[in-house]
Amino acid sequence: MARPAQLVSEPRDGGVDAAVAAARRIVDALLQAGEGTDADMTGVAKQLHAVADSLEDQAPAREERLVEMWRGDGITRHDPVTGPENALAPPLRLTGDEDGSVAGTLTLGLPYQGPPGCVHGGVSALLLDHTLGVANHWAGLVGMTAELTVRYHRPAPLFEPLTVSGRQVSVDGRKIRTIGALSAGGRDCVTTEGLFIAKQVPRPR
Amino acid sequence: MARPAQLVSEPRDGGVDAAVAAARRIVDALLQAGEGTDADMTGVAKQLHAVADSLEDQAPAREERLVEMWRGDGITRHDPVTGPENALAPPLRLTGDEDGSVAGTLTLGLPYQGPPGCVHGGVSALLLDHTLGVANHWAGLVGMTAELTVRYHRPAPLFEPLTVSGRQVSVDGRKIRTIGALSAGGRDCVTTEGLFIAKQVPRPR
Repeated sequence: MARPAQLVSEPRDGGVDAAVAAARRIVDALLQAGEGTDADMTGVAKQLHAVADSLEDQAPAREERLVEMWRGDGITRHDPVTGPENALAPPLRLTGDEDGSVAGTLTLGLPYQGPPGCVHGGVSALLLDHTLGVANHWAGLVGMTAELTVRYHRPAPLFEPLTVSGRQVSVDGRKIRTIGALSAGGRDCVTTEGLFIAKQVPRPR
Repeated sequence: MARPAQLVSEPRDGGVDAAVAAARRIVDALLQAGEGTDADMTGVAKQLHAVADSLEDQAPAREERLVEMWRGDGITRHDPVTGPENALAPPLRLTGDEDGSVAGTLTLGLPYQGPPGCVHGGVSALLLDHTLGVANHWAGLVGMTAELTVRYHRPAPLFEPLTVSGRQVSVDGRKIRTIGALSAGGRDCVTTEGLFIAKQVPRPR
């Protein structure tokens, strides 16, 4: 495999990924509009409900969809951090390096805000938890998060490139230890340590 | 004040909140549809881009909007956990009790998935980090998260009611300690301890 390797699903140009990319614009634009907007929100709500109605009418049953979504690429298509099918995901694109680390860059907008102009601390935890999981995958042994410690050194800014990185540091029996960081302009904003246990929730079938 | 007190912004029937509620349906329906859907995703993408174009054309400048969004109710209108203006937020509705605790119930769907059929561990961390912040507000002294420890006891299920709770336990100078839990069916799935420092990022003006 050529390295650095892409560890998340590449968004596709058409299909559901294209619709999800448009949905991300809606999420952002609604927050940017706010209460003071002149936009006809009743009309917007009506249009969006009509699209949702149509999608729901044609969607598979939940159990069927759960089986489908855990086939093949599995989580990387639909997770809330990297998934091109999930409008909640920024999405973060992570690659694996030869030294065993994984990393990606992203810029976050208003939907991810905590303190004024800064990334929500819980969003940083979400990004880092997921990145540690991908780092475990890259290292070849994955597990369920048992404990996650997140340290906040300085606020991470919105609207500026952030780097998210992670690396598995040790395996002791079923205990996996993995670390990660969220940085801006070369300075760590948030660092994390995770303890994972090598087991997994079974895939639906 | 009557207790238990509502600690988050109540979604309004019309305006941007109604459009955001519709956007949440879109996010969920796109994930439910997946790749195997018969829906015309090119058409859906086109409709959503048209709505986004229209919203963006009428939106205030970012700096102006940042000042506006930090007036009044501030974060509770737009944050990614409880905000009725933020389609990423489930939204969680928290109330404060006389004993000093805050709590809310919610049911999460596919956008919040980590392991098959379960809540993403990072999403639990996001919900809990935010809830600890609201617990600090309810206790009367807020701060910035310095360290968050999240312990995962058992997977939290999607599609079932979950309870999220938090409580400030001590204040020592500027150090605030706050705990919280995410539970399902009366059993703790995830517990957390947070250390906060009593300071805040200034509001934009």
